[in-house]
Amino acid sequence: MATPSPACPRRLLPLSLGLFQVALLLFFALFVTYDKPSAQAEDASSVANQLYSIYPLFQDIQVMLVVGLGLLLTFLPRYGLSALAHNFLLINFSTQWALVLQGLLHHFHHGQVHLDLHNLLTAEFAAVTVLISVGAVLGRTSPCQLLVVATCEVPIYLASEWAIITHLGVLDVGGTITIHIFSCYFGLGVSKALFGAARWPLHPKETPTPRSDLLSLVGTLILWVFWPSFVAVLCQPGDAQHRAILNTLLAMSASAVTTMVASSLLESDGKLSPGHLQNGSLAGGVAIGAVADMAMPPVAALALGSLSAIACVLGFRFLTPLLARKFTLQDQCGIHNLHGLPGILGAVASAVAILVASEGTSGSHFSQVSPVAGNASEAGGEQWRDRGAGGQALCQAAGLAVAISGSLLAGLLTGAVLRLPCLARPPEQLCFDDSLYFKIEDQAGSPEPGRTAEERALALKEQV
Amino acid sequence: MATPSPACPRRLLPLSLGLFQVALLLFFALFVTYDKPSAQAEDASSVANQLYSIYPLFQDIQVMLVVGLGLLLTFLPRYGLSALAHNFLLINFSTQWALVLQGLLHHFHHGQVHLDLHNLLTAEFAAVTVLISVGAVLGRTSPCQLLVVATCEVPIYLASEWAIITHLGVLDVGGTITIHIFSCYFGLGVSKALFGAARWPLHPKETPTPRSDLLSLVGTLILWVFWPSFVAVLCQPGDAQHRAILNTLLAMSASAVTTMVASSLLESDGKLSPGHLQNGSLAGGVAIGAVADMAMPPVAALALGSLSAIACVLGFRFLTPLLARKFTLQDQCGIHNLHGLPGILGAVASAVAILVASEGTSGSHFSQVSPVAGNASEAGGEQWRDRGAGGQALCQAAGLAVAISGSLLAGLLTGAVLRLPCLARPPEQLCFDDSLYFKIEDQAGSPEPGRTAEERALALKEQV
Amino acid sequence: MATPSPACPRRLLPLSLGLFQVALLLFFALFVTYDKPSAQAEDASSVANQLYSIYPLFQDIQVMLVVGLGLLLTFLPRYGLSALAHNFLLINFSTQWALVLQGLLHHFHHGQVHLDLHNLLTAEFAAVTVLISVGAVLGRTSPCQLLVVATCEVPIYLASEWAIITHLGVLDVGGTITIHIFSCYFGLGVSKALFGAARWPLHPKETPTPRSDLLSLVGTLILWVFWPSFVAVLCQPGDAQHRAILNTLLAMSASAVTTMVASSLLESDGKLSPGHLQNGSLAGGVAIGAVADMAMPPVAALALGSLSAIACVLGFRFLTPLLARKFTLQDQCGIHNLHGLPGILGAVASAVAILVASEGTSGSHFSQVSPVAGNASEAGGEQWRDRGAGGQALCQAAGLAVAISGSLLAGLLTGAVLRLPCLARPPEQLCFDDSLYFKIEDQAGSPEPGRTAEERALALKEQV
Repeated sequence: MATPSPACPRRLLPLSLGLFQVALLLFFALFVTYDKPSAQAEDASSVANQLYSIYPLFQDIQVMLVVGLGLLLTFLPRYGLSALAHNFLLINFSTQWALVLQGLLHHFHHGQVHLDLHNLLTAEFAAVTVLISVGAVLGRTSPCQLLVVATCEVPIYLASEWAIITHLGVLDVGGTITIHIFSCYFGLGVSKALFGAARWPLHPKETPTPRSDLLSLVGTLILWVFWPSFVAVLCQPGDAQHRAILNTLLAMSASAVTTMVASSLLESDGKLSPGHLQNGSLAGGVAIGAVADMAMPPVAALALGSLSAIACVLGFRFLTPLLARKFTLQDQCGIHNLHGLPGILGAVASAVAILVASEGTSGSHFSQVSPVAGNASEAGGEQWRDRGAGGQALCQAAGLAVAISGSLLAGLLTGAVLRLPCLARPPEQLCFDDSLYFKIEDQAGSPEPGRTAEERALALKEQV
Repeated sequence: MATPSPACPRRLLPLSLGLFQVALLLFFALFVTYDKPSAQAEDASSVANQLYSIYPLFQDIQVMLVVGLGLLLTFLPRYGLSALAHNFLLINFSTQWALVLQGLLHHFHHGQVHLDLHNLLTAEFAAVTVLISVGAVLGRTSPCQLLVVATCEVPIYLASEWAIITHLGVLDVGGTITIHIFSCYFGLGVSKALFGAARWPLHPKETPTPRSDLLSLVGTLILWVFWPSFVAVLCQPGDAQHRAILNTLLAMSASAVTTMVASSLLESDGKLSPGHLQNGSLAGGVAIGAVADMAMPPVAALALGSLSAIACVLGFRFLTPLLARKFTLQDQCGIHNLHGLPGILGAVASAVAILVASEGTSGSHFSQVSPVAGNASEAGGEQWRDRGAGGQALCQAAGLAVAISGSLLAGLLTGAVLRLPCLARPPEQLCFDDSLYFKIEDQAGSPEPGRTAEERALALKEQV
Repeated sequence: MATPSPACPRRLLPLSLGLFQVALLLFFALFVTYDKPSAQAEDASSVANQLYSIYPLFQDIQVMLVVGLGLLLTFLPRYGLSALAHNFLLINFSTQWALVLQGLLHHFHHGQVHLDLHNLLTAEFAAVTVLISVGAVLGRTSPCQLLVVATCEVPIYLASEWAIITHLGVLDVGGTITIHIFSCYFGLGVSKALFGAARWPLHPKETPTPRSDLLSLVGTLILWVFWPSFVAVLCQPGDAQHRAILNTLLAMSASAVTTMVASSLLESDGKLSPGHLQNGSLAGGVAIGAVADMAMPPVAALALGSLSAIACVLGFRFLTPLLARKFTLQDQCGIHNLHGLPGILGAVASAVAILVASEGTSGSHFSQVSPVAGNASEAGGEQWRDRGAGGQALCQAAGLAVAISGSLLAGLLTGAVLRLPCLARPPEQLCFDDSLYFKIEDQAGSPEPGRTAEERALALKEQV
């Protein structure tokens, strides 16, 4: 209780968050309805079938984000509650905020906004970018700051996604470019602008313990298991979706094994680094997103998974320390290694896959293997036919460039906003500690108590 | 090993439980068969489709009860194993007991009992009431006592459910009234009758640690993710089910954010209370049950979620201490705040929704928006048409009154039975401790050992 | 950092594993493609429906193996990271290795290998045998040794599965004989040959703590919830699959309750043993596999679940110590109690069920109740018709004998290979410790630190 002053002015967070909830209510009251039964489908059984096809995948993704990602972030031994709770808050806030923005955009074009599971899903994808970005500044930011990040990032993501998918016609069914690369460089931009040239020694609470690493690894495993649902949920039902699932499974299996190889080879005594395992195992899932539904041979998925795991582990070993030293760039969770490097690999792979596919197939077959992402609209496939494979490959590169440059710039601006004193970030000595944000009983005492005086008295009575 | 005598006479629990298993075998041998293949469906693909539509939701609910609720209860730092194991025992015992009772009732009317996933599901819903009720007395009761609670509560629940749903025609697809309110007041009745006027100081093992709070929060998140399946599983497939899922998702999202707002505002230093977060985030799911499939605008779901979260947090902050002080009422997990207050809100909301819906719609449309719960049978919808909106709203109120009064009375009686000396509850100084129910090696030593002598010897050898 | 030399020569593991990944890439590049769209199905909606019927069950099984089984193995308090990571490595390596072997076999007969979810699933079943077997030597073996086990066991499993299911026509839809019994005796063979006549005192790190027992119990609960998917995934869609799910649910429910009864009765003070609960609750799932889809009354599933739980608990209490004393047989996880004894019960039950079913039914009905396992091919059902019930029952016994003798022999040979010095197993004093395989910061200090000097300095600043 002796902590001097919480980083965030005490009432700013709940009041602004409460205000947002009221605004959300107003917006929903004025503009949002459910799909009209008649407008949507002919008979109940067709609606039911649609529901049964998307709902299990939707739930898988919810488990990934709420439980899996939350646990992955608990590797800081005294910051587990905060990591889990802030992740949970950001999911909900960002999804609501994305619903409002999507709804407003839609409203100006079509009037009343109709809500269904598909809307919720795309809003949740916007929330994912926030969850990834804040990994760069985990533990050193207040919830106020995190909400400001979400407030800024969601609209920029929506604009960037429109530019990349709808305008450029980039193929990216699993969000490699639009979600992973975007959020990574946004997060790095925030971190750079927020922490500037600060150079800290290792914080004593920053070192994971075997126990916190264990819970974090459980989070990784949950993400690993459900990742295929994340990649495949917006694919066209049928062959494309089946292929996306298989490609993701192969890529992640290769990632898992290759991570162990690479991590052991890099350490002088052949031991594994828990951090490598927690992140590298997932690298294949990041990279495969852009090519998951394309008609490519299975070996390509395996190779991509292996390469991205190698890139991730090398990044942790060499690039992160280099960036910290040369550019004073903080990247607490190593999002550049998990989302940035594998994402770039995946984007490059998508361009290569398009070029190779066009060589190997006749013109008539070409349109058949054209992957049409669920959220890319039919335009993607058509543009591909119009512009040819070379043009489409260039488009993928252009999408990559737009994602990186746009997000980095926007992140830097957002980070500058976070320096506002009213969002004052926690002082360094209070970082990485749950007791700053949570009412924890008896926090002065040891959290794993030896017997207290009272207990000893009780224990004495037991003997009698 | 020095603990004097377990609270429950050593052989009573296993013997009575074993006897019950034998009786269960006998009952199944005499009366229960699987559905006849021919009787059930015309072709294999239709059976398969039915299975694929209910089985994933069934599994979601199993995860909620066995893993999610179990983990939620591990917030007592030295009572995690017991909380998890007793929860697991009660699920299985209560489901079996409900199957027997349902089967007997059915047998007297129709002869042979046919078992399918739907039967199992409704039996599991009966088990849920037991799991909720015992939260009021968590840690201060022996497994013997818990089994007695289950034995008494399941038949009373079945009777109450029949009275409320079948007889009164109350609409309550997600169990707000029949499950949450019923089990809450049953549990409070048990606690009051069992502990009477006892007034204890805070037990030293009653205080959560950050680590136990973390695991408990993971349980909350699992419950939060899968709650829509719980609410929607018995809805009519198609639009109603889709609406139930969306309403639940919205309500729970609003609950999560509003809980953080309310909890921060209530604490003097703006910190969050882990207990508020663990419970308040789920309040929306409790409240939405009675209205989830009704044709109401999405904003109603959001508002209900926010209101119930506020009620829950206020309950923890003011009502629970008040009840403990004025009425010496123990409520260990705060079930009144999570299930009682939001449940009442939801019941009131259902009456309001019915009245509002009837005003806004013409007579012919009325029957169309009438939600027909899967377990309410067609009677519910028909009764509504017959009795009009005002009558139906009164019915909802009547159902609420029946649920509260019946369960409170039955709970008081059950609590009185629990005072029987042969079920002797654990002495206060042995409460909240796994070592009373589990064989734990070296329980005298610290559970998180520094190095023992033996280990030090081994460590020494390692240096050589 | 002072640990002298890792058990496994430092570079052997990553190099050989890396080599395997390269070989896997080559194999996939040369031989493996996805199913041709045209070859597989007529229209997209049929492919989609097929996918939606198998994918949720596939995901359930992934959760079981990666998360559930991984957590179950974390009962050793200082070996959690290694248990989880080695389990994860073995799943991926064994599945890849099984894909290669299945592919090669298929290639020599039919040319190009087509990959789909069904192939992946059967490859994963091969991996399950490895995961079970290594439970016998958990904590005393290096990852190198574990990979050698996997390399040897997968081809032997494929041969044994072919002999039992395809050649003998044994009915075993849930893998009781082919997976559980096979892997159990293989693992015991490995343990016996590897550790020979070694007789160790209890290792100080071998004793579970309440906290490690808690996480392990969570693993059990996850396995318990999803087990029906494991048993039913290869059943014929429709009635057989529905029956398999219900039978598994009943058996596991009976197991859970009976385990508590048996464990309490066996301990002198009526307390539960965490180990009994973690394993006995799952015994019913092991035993039910061979009979899950047969047309038997529900009471049989309940009885089988209860009996197998009793066998499991008795095994832990009496048989494991006996085997350790008389035969110096190490069984670290008690796989003989969870997979061996209940497996034998299940195999015997399948023979009995076939005999009883044939008595109770006329000839014409006989073929109708004949369960045809998805992986048993139609041959199983036909052979049954040809050879009659007595012949089929004999076949089940023959399958049991083949599984036990073959796996025991193969396991002994594999265990002999593991004694090769280049795979040198960890020295006894370094067993059961994550620090041998993981780079753990500050492992000399206590993992649950009191405040370090640095922290104390920071804390001091906080006061100012």
